[in-house]
Amino acid sequence: MSTIKVSAYRWVPPFAQGLVRDLRVRWALEEAGMLYEERLLDFRNKPDSYRKLQPFGQVPTFEQDGLVLFETGAIVLHIAERSTLLLPPDPSARARATSWMFAALNSVEPSIMSLIQIDLRFAGDAAATQVREAAVDAVKSRLESVAAWLGERDYLEDRFTAGDLLMVTVLRILRHTDMVTTMPALAAYQERCETRPAFQKALAAQMAVFAENAATAA
Amino acid sequence: MSTIKVSAYRWVPPFAQGLVRDLRVRWALEEAGMLYEERLLDFRNKPDSYRKLQPFGQVPTFEQDGLVLFETGAIVLHIAERSTLLLPPDPSARARATSWMFAALNSVEPSIMSLIQIDLRFAGDAAATQVREAAVDAVKSRLESVAAWLGERDYLEDRFTAGDLLMVTVLRILRHTDMVTTMPALAAYQERCETRPAFQKALAAQMAVFAENAATAA
Repeated sequence: MSTIKVSAYRWVPPFAQGLVRDLRVRWALEEAGMLYEERLLDFRNKPDSYRKLQPFGQVPTFEQDGLVLFETGAIVLHIAERSTLLLPPDPSARARATSWMFAALNSVEPSIMSLIQIDLRFAGDAAATQVREAAVDAVKSRLESVAAWLGERDYLEDRFTAGDLLMVTVLRILRHTDMVTTMPALAAYQERCETRPAFQKALAAQMAVFAENAATAA
Repeated sequence: MSTIKVSAYRWVPPFAQGLVRDLRVRWALEEAGMLYEERLLDFRNKPDSYRKLQPFGQVPTFEQDGLVLFETGAIVLHIAERSTLLLPPDPSARARATSWMFAALNSVEPSIMSLIQIDLRFAGDAAATQVREAAVDAVKSRLESVAAWLGERDYLEDRFTAGDLLMVTVLRILRHTDMVTTMPALAAYQERCETRPAFQKALAAQMAVFAENAATAA
């Protein structure tokens, strides 16, 4: 197998540092013990040709042996299928973990992204108050469902899987709010996953690139 | 293998008929030639025990031989892995199709759902105008990316896959707007997929349940 190449940004503003989606792929690769190189891009000036790799112009992409994948969920799944640390060997348990991967990205993240869009674009705008309140309620409802499911569990299923990896990186997006920290079981779950050495390595790798390029990019 | 059971609603208001997510699973099952039974629920009065099957209380769920799956994307993937009509046999082509499955659910649908939430809850509310405009722009940007990728292609990759199935059922959510119909290539793509006999059977099956229960449920 030839080298894995993952696209990432050279630098992003502080509010996005530690959240950019390549973190999810870096984390999966670290859990799976797979080496990778970065394809670094300027987020304000991506080459037009990048859309051939990623139809929405986003990061990350995954390249190996001529295969080009996009979408964090698909890339994490591709990596997870090659590592029992991310997906259990039993087919039913794998399918359950896959349910949680999609749940993180299609049932939890969208409500959070709706809220983020309002917070980024309409901060302090009184006209957006009502819409923001509805967005907050939607996020809370999803978080309560996740917390209720977790109950006394350490992980969404009986062990750490790629489903937890995606769920936790989705919860991280709420760090500018107290929505996770005011739910102790959820906060403890997030911390439990984020203390994993593979996560710490992945986060450090993303932040190191931003630090290296801070002087020229900011 | 024992019978497949898919959860669905007995009845929903007209704006949601033909859009409820079990349509996606019914379509996948029809493409794959798999028989299924329905587990019908009242959307206003779901039993508490349903959360044990579906942590967010949504439809659909998929049950077979003791395996319980939730999340449309995960269920469609599970079915697709068992049918070359939904995923090509070549591993790279499968991974590409999976990228499109996640793209539909994590890069396209969230922007559409943000818009829908505003349209459902703040219709005609002047205070929401600015937020709605931003939501419309976000949807347009995603639709333009899909249309640009499609170009002259009939499908997202070189043949119909589960990626098209999910993308088209996501585009359907915009039927109360002219956002797809004003993009001829995208509208033609949607129609191309929706004329498939399996889609027509799936849609008819969902609508038949609503029709049967309209008198008592509305």
